Amino acid sequence: MMLQPTAWNRGGVSGILKAMKTQLIALAVLACLSTAASSDTAENAVRAPAYSEDGRLLLPENYREWIYLTSGFDMSYSAVAVPGHHMFDNVFVEPGAYKSFVATGKWPDKTVLVLEVRGAKDKGSINKHGNYQDSEVMGREVHVKDTSRFPENGWAFFGFDSGTSAKMTPRTADCYSCHADHAAVDNTFVQFYPTLLPIATEKGTLSAAYKAESAKN
Amino acid sequence: MMLQPTAWNRGGVSGILKAMKTQLIALAVLACLSTAASSDTAENAVRAPAYSEDGRLLLPENYREWIYLTSGFDMSYSAVAVPGHHMFDNVFVEPGAYKSFVATGKWPDKTVLVLEVRGAKDKGSINKHGNYQDSEVMGREVHVKDTSRFPENGWAFFGFDSGTSAKMTPRTADCYSCHADHAAVDNTFVQFYPTLLPIATEKGTLSAAYKAESAKN
Repeated sequence: MMLQPTAWNRGGVSGILKAMKTQLIALAVLACLSTAASSDTAENAVRAPAYSEDGRLLLPENYREWIYLTSGFDMSYSAVAVPGHHMFDNVFVEPGAYKSFVATGKWPDKTVLVLEVRGAKDKGSINKHGNYQDSEVMGREVHVKDTSRFPENGWAFFGFDSGTSAKMTPRTADCYSCHADHAAVDNTFVQFYPTLLPIATEKGTLSAAYKAESAKN
Repeated sequence: MMLQPTAWNRGGVSGILKAMKTQLIALAVLACLSTAASSDTAENAVRAPAYSEDGRLLLPENYREWIYLTSGFDMSYSAVAVPGHHMFDNVFVEPGAYKSFVATGKWPDKTVLVLEVRGAKDKGSINKHGNYQDSEVMGREVHVKDTSRFPENGWAFFGFDSGTSAKMTPRTADCYSCHADHAAVDNTFVQFYPTLLPIATEKGTLSAAYKAESAKN
């Protein structure tokens, strides 16, 4: 956003008038600058996660309009077989956090990532092979960085079924240790986010654990 | 966002201090209002496709920051076998066109949709089953509604390989007739966009051909 300086013509005005004009103009410019500044800030600011009074995370209503990171198909980190149906997972991140990551290769405090799981359909309309996504959402998992609230390592998971709020997944769940041990960047699986992995590589923010693991393969 | 420069030229004033004050304040308020209004407009406006002088479509640079619609896995509309590798396709739409669709169930003129094809990886990092997306893009196809430029039915396809501009796919290509005959909404496969299909259904904008086809299944 550009704010153009205003050109002023001050000819033939009396002393007090001039001063007053200057004051009014200064106020006008300040008002516009503050509009501009708050608009800039609003655009780039990280929108913090919202909680209920009893500490449940509120599902961000408009996460489908956030920045898309990636989709997986039937992904599983476990050696045991996958369920008898196919699934997609789609990952979104809050736009302010995304902009910060693009600039630094790191997640700012208050980052929110949403993983949405959808069923996979195969035959339908003109589709003959492969899979497309169902309108029904099977579940959502939200990963939040909020260092004052989660002092252990800054992050917490919240699993949503059909509701719009969820309590924190207990810290004993496998997801915490798995993300801590294997995440490419700060407890997040940036290794599976195709547009962010090159940024983290370039910015030098890949975790030592991930680099050691990659070197072995 | 544009802020219009304000021109001031009011020399030789004395007894009309009050009038001038009012005028200055009015101008200041107007300047700020115009800032706010143009910001609103910019946010909701449909950003039109851009072409080179010889009619090639320019790839929208920031389409990964547009609104995500869906991903498919190995999708094919042909009865013949799929290639020997797995693929994801991700679909994005320009945010102004998306907002218009959410409000009306229809695509406005100048709508741009980008389909991005990425290779699918399987074993890597901690992934044991299923597939995730590769950082390398295998191709992009852009679908544009531009009724003055494409008077036949308003739409045109452009296939991008590695370049940043592409010439229009000839109108004899199968994609045109397939989209015209089977699209759920106005030449677009909204039947595969899980958040848009319910909107088109509710707004009553599904095509007769799609409704007849759905009724048979």
